[in-house]
Amino acid sequence: MENILKENERIDDLQYKGLKIIQNKDGFCFGIDSVLITDFAKEIKKGANVIDLGTGTGIISLLLCKKTEINKIIGVEIQKEVADMAKRSIKLNKLEEKIKIINDNIKNIKDYINYNSYDAVITNPPYKKLNTGITNENRKRLISRHEVEATLEDFISIASKLLKNNGAFYMVHRPERLADIIENLRKYKLEPKKIRFVHSKEGQEANMILIKSVKGAKPFLKIERPMYVYNEEQNYTDEILEIYNKEK
Amino acid sequence: MENILKENERIDDLQYKGLKIIQNKDGFCFGIDSVLITDFAKEIKKGANVIDLGTGTGIISLLLCKKTEINKIIGVEIQKEVADMAKRSIKLNKLEEKIKIINDNIKNIKDYINYNSYDAVITNPPYKKLNTGITNENRKRLISRHEVEATLEDFISIASKLLKNNGAFYMVHRPERLADIIENLRKYKLEPKKIRFVHSKEGQEANMILIKSVKGAKPFLKIERPMYVYNEEQNYTDEILEIYNKEK
Repeated sequence: MENILKENERIDDLQYKGLKIIQNKDGFCFGIDSVLITDFAKEIKKGANVIDLGTGTGIISLLLCKKTEINKIIGVEIQKEVADMAKRSIKLNKLEEKIKIINDNIKNIKDYINYNSYDAVITNPPYKKLNTGITNENRKRLISRHEVEATLEDFISIASKLLKNNGAFYMVHRPERLADIIENLRKYKLEPKKIRFVHSKEGQEANMILIKSVKGAKPFLKIERPMYVYNEEQNYTDEILEIYNKEK
Repeated sequence: MENILKENERIDDLQYKGLKIIQNKDGFCFGIDSVLITDFAKEIKKGANVIDLGTGTGIISLLLCKKTEINKIIGVEIQKEVADMAKRSIKLNKLEEKIKIINDNIKNIKDYINYNSYDAVITNPPYKKLNTGITNENRKRLISRHEVEATLEDFISIASKLLKNNGAFYMVHRPERLADIIENLRKYKLEPKKIRFVHSKEGQEANMILIKSVKGAKPFLKIERPMYVYNEEQNYTDEILEIYNKEK
């Protein structure tokens, strides 16, 4: 085990089907949003080929391998050290046959793979426009949270190019960007088909959005029942515990 | 009273601050959607001048007069007999000084009033595209429910033209059209600012959307807590009872 970890890194047990992940104590650690978008996308069919845009430490790719029977997933990550952590996590979980990592900007993906050939694309992109919100953080976290290297429009246009016709695009994002999201999805022929809003608690506004779009589909959008993360007692709701595969 | 009602008409007591409304037994009677969009828009400021696009029997205009301190509201209704019912309801409620009715297609509104001069526009437009859903109904109901005479894009583009900069547009619609709604709002410089999804009951998908947009505003959309119409016992929830001004 001594050579799989670098300075400031630790191995976290995902407590899900034996999965482990390497994370940097000072970097961007995965959050509930990655877990929820993976669960939202667990309908992806057996044998599917999938792309994970901006995979970070690989959390979505790792979880999706255990939640579905997909054939392969390619994670694309711009940050060298973060992509390297993802590669070591894949090795640690013996998933080298299922998950590949490309260490480059998502905008260069055409140098590696073919357009119009994937069944699904999944992403947890940076949520904030550059120059909005607090940007007084280290570079690694900045790239993970703000649109420094690729914008929302980049993520959406690239997802559209990668997908086969009728392929599905799954994204987690912030509700405040919903108009930007829908406008761009339509621009790139990705039709929004299903949305689930996530609220911290009952009676509060939404703080997360899970959205599925389908390339070239007919318009008809379903707004599913809201998801609540915490109950009255400040504990995870039964639904969240189930997603995390924990005892109620 | 004998001359205020025509054949097949009746007077319904709105049980709200003494309001009454004339409706046709065979026509389109107002539903909870009109009541909810009026309540959603009750923030409209004192002295505001408002347009109600596709007012029907005038339900939104009547309620808004009692829920706010607006200066005036103009209801536009294409169907002659329906516009006539609205006019008689206004008389019945002695609101001739506050509410005017224009009997014409909303697309001709520029013949009557000036663009860029209203503080708010409110509408409960037809929800369905023409040639979708069941259209085997009488002409009056067809016009009220389907985009026969004006499309969603017409309603949105006209609302935008009528509003002052920073004026607010309130619309109730179906969630399945949300992508069409947002794409068109953006096209006509109406920025979506606040959405509330209405669900028949907890655990069910949304069946109505209340959306506020502001002309020329900066993007930042708030998804408010969901609204539920019925509780477990199939009765109206406390929130709905409050909107209807009824005892719990």
